[in-house]
Amino acid sequence: MKIWQKASGNKKEVEQFTIGRDPEFDIILAPYDVLGSMAHAAMLEKIGLLTSEENQSLQKGLKEIYQEIENGEFQIEEGVEDVHSQVEFLLTNRLGPVGKKLHSGRSRNDQVLVDLKLYYRAAIQELVAEITDLGLLLSQLSEKHQSDLMPGYTHTQLAMPSSFGLWFASFLEGLAEDLQLLKTAFDLSNKNPLGSAAGYGSSFPLDRTMTTQLLGFADLHHNVINAQNSRGKTERTLAFAMAGIAATLNRMADDICLFMNQHFSFVSFPDELTTGSSIMPHKKNPDVFELIRAKTNQIQAVPQTISLLLTNSTTGYHRDLQLLKEEVFPALESLKDCVRMTTFMLQSIQIRKNILNDPFYQHVFSVEVVNDLVLKGMPFRDAYKKVGLDIESGDFNPDQTQVSHSHEGSIGNLNLEEINQKLQKAIRSFDFESVENAVNKLIGK
Amino acid sequence: MKIWQKASGNKKEVEQFTIGRDPEFDIILAPYDVLGSMAHAAMLEKIGLLTSEENQSLQKGLKEIYQEIENGEFQIEEGVEDVHSQVEFLLTNRLGPVGKKLHSGRSRNDQVLVDLKLYYRAAIQELVAEITDLGLLLSQLSEKHQSDLMPGYTHTQLAMPSSFGLWFASFLEGLAEDLQLLKTAFDLSNKNPLGSAAGYGSSFPLDRTMTTQLLGFADLHHNVINAQNSRGKTERTLAFAMAGIAATLNRMADDICLFMNQHFSFVSFPDELTTGSSIMPHKKNPDVFELIRAKTNQIQAVPQTISLLLTNSTTGYHRDLQLLKEEVFPALESLKDCVRMTTFMLQSIQIRKNILNDPFYQHVFSVEVVNDLVLKGMPFRDAYKKVGLDIESGDFNPDQTQVSHSHEGSIGNLNLEEINQKLQKAIRSFDFESVENAVNKLIGK
Amino acid sequence: MKIWQKASGNKKEVEQFTIGRDPEFDIILAPYDVLGSMAHAAMLEKIGLLTSEENQSLQKGLKEIYQEIENGEFQIEEGVEDVHSQVEFLLTNRLGPVGKKLHSGRSRNDQVLVDLKLYYRAAIQELVAEITDLGLLLSQLSEKHQSDLMPGYTHTQLAMPSSFGLWFASFLEGLAEDLQLLKTAFDLSNKNPLGSAAGYGSSFPLDRTMTTQLLGFADLHHNVINAQNSRGKTERTLAFAMAGIAATLNRMADDICLFMNQHFSFVSFPDELTTGSSIMPHKKNPDVFELIRAKTNQIQAVPQTISLLLTNSTTGYHRDLQLLKEEVFPALESLKDCVRMTTFMLQSIQIRKNILNDPFYQHVFSVEVVNDLVLKGMPFRDAYKKVGLDIESGDFNPDQTQVSHSHEGSIGNLNLEEINQKLQKAIRSFDFESVENAVNKLIGK
Amino acid sequence: MKIWQKASGNKKEVEQFTIGRDPEFDIILAPYDVLGSMAHAAMLEKIGLLTSEENQSLQKGLKEIYQEIENGEFQIEEGVEDVHSQVEFLLTNRLGPVGKKLHSGRSRNDQVLVDLKLYYRAAIQELVAEITDLGLLLSQLSEKHQSDLMPGYTHTQLAMPSSFGLWFASFLEGLAEDLQLLKTAFDLSNKNPLGSAAGYGSSFPLDRTMTTQLLGFADLHHNVINAQNSRGKTERTLAFAMAGIAATLNRMADDICLFMNQHFSFVSFPDELTTGSSIMPHKKNPDVFELIRAKTNQIQAVPQTISLLLTNSTTGYHRDLQLLKEEVFPALESLKDCVRMTTFMLQSIQIRKNILNDPFYQHVFSVEVVNDLVLKGMPFRDAYKKVGLDIESGDFNPDQTQVSHSHEGSIGNLNLEEINQKLQKAIRSFDFESVENAVNKLIGK
Repeated sequence: MKIWQKASGNKKEVEQFTIGRDPEFDIILAPYDVLGSMAHAAMLEKIGLLTSEENQSLQKGLKEIYQEIENGEFQIEEGVEDVHSQVEFLLTNRLGPVGKKLHSGRSRNDQVLVDLKLYYRAAIQELVAEITDLGLLLSQLSEKHQSDLMPGYTHTQLAMPSSFGLWFASFLEGLAEDLQLLKTAFDLSNKNPLGSAAGYGSSFPLDRTMTTQLLGFADLHHNVINAQNSRGKTERTLAFAMAGIAATLNRMADDICLFMNQHFSFVSFPDELTTGSSIMPHKKNPDVFELIRAKTNQIQAVPQTISLLLTNSTTGYHRDLQLLKEEVFPALESLKDCVRMTTFMLQSIQIRKNILNDPFYQHVFSVEVVNDLVLKGMPFRDAYKKVGLDIESGDFNPDQTQVSHSHEGSIGNLNLEEINQKLQKAIRSFDFESVENAVNKLIGK
Repeated sequence: MKIWQKASGNKKEVEQFTIGRDPEFDIILAPYDVLGSMAHAAMLEKIGLLTSEENQSLQKGLKEIYQEIENGEFQIEEGVEDVHSQVEFLLTNRLGPVGKKLHSGRSRNDQVLVDLKLYYRAAIQELVAEITDLGLLLSQLSEKHQSDLMPGYTHTQLAMPSSFGLWFASFLEGLAEDLQLLKTAFDLSNKNPLGSAAGYGSSFPLDRTMTTQLLGFADLHHNVINAQNSRGKTERTLAFAMAGIAATLNRMADDICLFMNQHFSFVSFPDELTTGSSIMPHKKNPDVFELIRAKTNQIQAVPQTISLLLTNSTTGYHRDLQLLKEEVFPALESLKDCVRMTTFMLQSIQIRKNILNDPFYQHVFSVEVVNDLVLKGMPFRDAYKKVGLDIESGDFNPDQTQVSHSHEGSIGNLNLEEINQKLQKAIRSFDFESVENAVNKLIGK
Repeated sequence: MKIWQKASGNKKEVEQFTIGRDPEFDIILAPYDVLGSMAHAAMLEKIGLLTSEENQSLQKGLKEIYQEIENGEFQIEEGVEDVHSQVEFLLTNRLGPVGKKLHSGRSRNDQVLVDLKLYYRAAIQELVAEITDLGLLLSQLSEKHQSDLMPGYTHTQLAMPSSFGLWFASFLEGLAEDLQLLKTAFDLSNKNPLGSAAGYGSSFPLDRTMTTQLLGFADLHHNVINAQNSRGKTERTLAFAMAGIAATLNRMADDICLFMNQHFSFVSFPDELTTGSSIMPHKKNPDVFELIRAKTNQIQAVPQTISLLLTNSTTGYHRDLQLLKEEVFPALESLKDCVRMTTFMLQSIQIRKNILNDPFYQHVFSVEVVNDLVLKGMPFRDAYKKVGLDIESGDFNPDQTQVSHSHEGSIGNLNLEEINQKLQKAIRSFDFESVENAVNKLIGK
Repeated sequence: MKIWQKASGNKKEVEQFTIGRDPEFDIILAPYDVLGSMAHAAMLEKIGLLTSEENQSLQKGLKEIYQEIENGEFQIEEGVEDVHSQVEFLLTNRLGPVGKKLHSGRSRNDQVLVDLKLYYRAAIQELVAEITDLGLLLSQLSEKHQSDLMPGYTHTQLAMPSSFGLWFASFLEGLAEDLQLLKTAFDLSNKNPLGSAAGYGSSFPLDRTMTTQLLGFADLHHNVINAQNSRGKTERTLAFAMAGIAATLNRMADDICLFMNQHFSFVSFPDELTTGSSIMPHKKNPDVFELIRAKTNQIQAVPQTISLLLTNSTTGYHRDLQLLKEEVFPALESLKDCVRMTTFMLQSIQIRKNILNDPFYQHVFSVEVVNDLVLKGMPFRDAYKKVGLDIESGDFNPDQTQVSHSHEGSIGNLNLEEINQKLQKAIRSFDFESVENAVNKLIGK
């Protein structure tokens, strides 16, 4: 049964091809579809398209379905096209003709749009929770290892002194800054598209401000074509935000894979968290971080796939948009997994101590020595030249293995408090509470 | 002459290959390099690495160079490696040994980082100015053509009534929403990296808060590794923002190319703005919009190129980063061109009137008829079925050619005021004034 | 049970994260894993690492498993890590200690490499079969509609006369040319990697030429590091080839979506192959072609995802490579679906006749008129100018609605025979027969 | 002056925007434009559209221009739109009205198409020459360093013995295999599009087989729409081929950057080929290889940019195609530079000897020890377990520092002859000689 079915049916080849992977995504969207319908029905009563009784009946029926979804009892039955049809079908079965009135003043286009926005809001909230956990751990690790020096590299060459504290904190601040992009994606997800119908609005006197408030949206897409255009733009922006976070995790994973290499041996993990080889009995492989690196690359590829799906296409819904779900839904899960596994692994990270005491690393102190000369009055370029000549002639021999960096954000002054505040401020900016309050009110919690 | 030159020189093949296209980009960075040096010198005085006289001398010398750059008199001389070396070379030539003291406490890494951030801030400001112009025009066009109906399409099929007012306004609101992504890129550009040196900080007691204020940065990258990691992240975020705007322009351009097709003939442009064919004398081709479409595709590809340049690479500067300029600088120019040309062309757009009066379009009124039946009390699904059968049997014959959409953001109620406010609010969020004040103070304007 | 398992086990979080989607892909690889083991065991006998009896026993055991796979009775048991382990586990259970000897002289790296190559060969063969079908249909349609004229567009503007015959044949020749890229991917898949072990060869005197012949490979990757590097390169090349074919289908689908638009109405399909709208009862939407367009965009994005997975990584296996399967396997299925559905739909395509008889299209004959003047002796540029002025003044009025193009590949001379030969030659170049013969011999068919 | 100019001129903003970077690319295309015109004119004589005298006159005029181009005396004059117009303009100026007859039977579309194909053929030939040089050097280095062992890594972990000979040869065979993709791009470039005019053929009785032969094309695009579709497809295929080669160079560059790291110090280069740091006097940075890595990433991004430019667009020329030149031309130059610089640098590579003598590397011999046990009769899985336990307990102590790999493509049996033959066969497959002969005949050399 299809809601838009005409006299002639759809050949099964067409049906199979066009449905694709939608059933698995529709189950994810189900609770949001019910929420959207609740708000829509309440609004239809206000503008006189439903009686108060009809609306009450629909609200009750929808709440029941919402409960069934939460209990895992909801499914899309054989022959029913999608989640929207299933919900309408259940309502009509249970409540009678009033079920057929629910679709007045909306189209599947704005219906699925609102479902997606509500789902993205919730998925972003989960992602932020994972990042919050990781941030807390990074802050602790940074503090714990503030004095554990390691070499810093440029051009993959030994360069200057660094520290594990500095290194952990770099990802902490990186993630805090990445959240602004995610906030942009959240804000775009947090705008109401309902009332745009098929992308050109409706001749009914819909009250879009009312559904905006009921669903806890911070704003609405005023223009109805723009609301429809937000399908794709929301996903692209979310993909950008995910790619940004993924890039930060990718770098940390790549660092760790290198630092676990036997030449470095800067960090290690318990045996139970590494993997072996089918022919080399001595191996301890960093598979988890290799897979985080690879998965974050897949995620970084999503924006481009979405651009290809959307570009060179005219205003107005195209069925192409359906495939956005295949790109974004799994990427959201994958990114949450990557953040969670990074946290999981870092909980057990072991740091090698006193690395820079080995004379192998003496050159990393050359800038310290140059700076000492400068502090004693030699112009920088002359001091640089002198130390360079000492190194070439083999006369460079600092007995130094400590550093006394003191400026903001340096080894000796990590600014952890400021960075933690940056993260907390970024997290608070999302205002998930308003969203939760609206949703709870709608479902009567 | 190279500042880091060792005893042995660099073979000319290596020199040529490694310099690449930098000279053309370095000229663009020149004024920002001088600004960064002014702030750095002032700070060096404060922490005692320069005397007050030395700093005064450097400030005067740098102002002179800044003036030369503004006058177009600045160039990177034969044999001088880059803009940083040229400025230092001029200072040392003109002011003597004090020139050699300027580089204390910084590396070329944080020097170019600060140059880039200052340049991006300025380039974003220019881009926002272009978008402001386009927004104003779109708002005017939307108002002017509020009542000019056109068909709306879904699946590239005639769907429902739309209007030129609605269509213009959709891009207006789209651009307003795109600006949030650009603001994120701006905020990332508006953080001070100076003091991160080669990415691991300095043993000098640098006052990074002071340079932050002098350069009008809203914040700093506290962690010095994170500051270095912002090279690449800033460009990627800026590329995301550009891609978002580009996608909006791409859709408008694609619409126009279709609407100029003779089957549609919805819009046209004066002959002097279209182009002809070398063998078909009747052609009026939409080359400008085809090129906007193509250029916005190039811009949408930049994020992916940047991801390839950055991914799977460890913490710490790599020379690979140099090529980011080749991707981002031309894209910024190209996007500004695309926005400006869109504005330029739309100033002359001609709209066909009364399109929907042609019976060819009668089916786009089918939903209006369904809705009328609903308002008379028929359940939506039943009304939908009735009109569907009428259409199949050829009995559908609405005499309607007007629409009375009245809800927020619909044909009859464009919400132009709200959308314009959304745009203005987005523009104001950038706070370019603070930036300009700081820069003017630095150069003594 | 893991073959490489050390004393300490793997935490379940790590296990779950690292296995990922492999179980679903491993089932696909199962028959190829058995084939690879058959060839490997036979070779081990030849070099004296297995007795003749041991090899016979293994061949028999492997054939049994192959049969079970074909019967759908094979599965990877709970707690068994992958398909390779499952096969070895079954052999050891059924045949005793000889099962533990099979892995001598190989690593899971070259084992999975050979599985993948054999699978790609087979998948390419299936894809070529689908393309062969589509090619046949396009040839028939081209012949049938040779005389059905339609307008040709440039810049999406009416340009010159074209025909459906010409249009169908363009995709036929396009696909024939696309096959060369697929042949390149096939040739890369048709090279033996077995014997490269973990990517650095083996101290056993393996006979790699023997396994090359047994598995019907046309060649081998001689260098063992290069063999390992072919993991990723093979997938990237296959992705390129798929993207090429996808681009051809994308264009056809985009044409059809436009030609189905009511302004054009050049082509149509039976109702049962189009879909409707939930609020617009008059719609007949080209969903199948929209989805082909979208799916071919997803496929065109695969090369970039693979580049991100592979780039900036050093020689030697990395776990990252595991995720290539997630990109390539579904894309192969999706592309086969798209080719098949294109064939399925085109079988029912309906063409509008006599399109160019409508005076609306008279301008497309302008070049014909120019050429007539040239044939009468007027220089081209002068004839072009004259016709251009006639059009501008409204005096252009050709009574022509026929064209007499006669050169190779033009409307009146489609070169269908030559194009069909091009396709047949491309298909034959794959030499699937040799591959099948070798495989059949191995499994004793 | 524009050839297609109508009464009303083009506003200078439009002109500037639409011309873009074409002038710099048009100079590159100039000689190929002349060659295409020579073949076209000769053909026009044969079909009676030019007299023998007219053709002679044009051939002489064109040869003169060809000579001027070779002498660097050719330029596109102020106000002339493009290279095609400039050539026609010179001919008409010098030869009179016959110049205006040259454009009969062609369009700028097939004219530029043929120019591009001829240019790509030539550029591919240059690229193959660079790869031939690199291949020769890799073969020599492989032979020279056959016995210089190094560790092989998997998961970036020490794994098994490898050798510099094996490592160099892996790239040699890799490049040989990459050439098949380039051959596919060459074959697509080596098909004649001339005669397709604006993409729909011509009413003149053009002899396309004749121009195919005159220009040395191996084949023609029969179908004229397909010929036009080859614009874009040729570039995409060429981009795929470049990306394949780039990926091989990228891996070598990434290896070298790691091997130059002080922890490894496996390879080094003379000081004059490395670069220093502005603040760290001890640095020797691998900038050339970092830039090769980065440039090969830019090249690997080209396919995606091209896909974005081309996708979701209908049959027929679109102005968007113009921008393909901006993507492909610089990439061709960049890739040639990267191959050349790789050769240049490798000529000076210094290899550390006897690396594996250091006990640090003893674990890489674990598989050798396992294999020895197997050769003595222990089943592989049992031997693997025994050695694994020895390693865990610290009892693993092989006194081995040599390997005796002997199978095809292994350390002791590099198969250099076979691999060199593979490369030579790939190079010969291009048959550049036929192309050169045709071109020389045309220009009378």
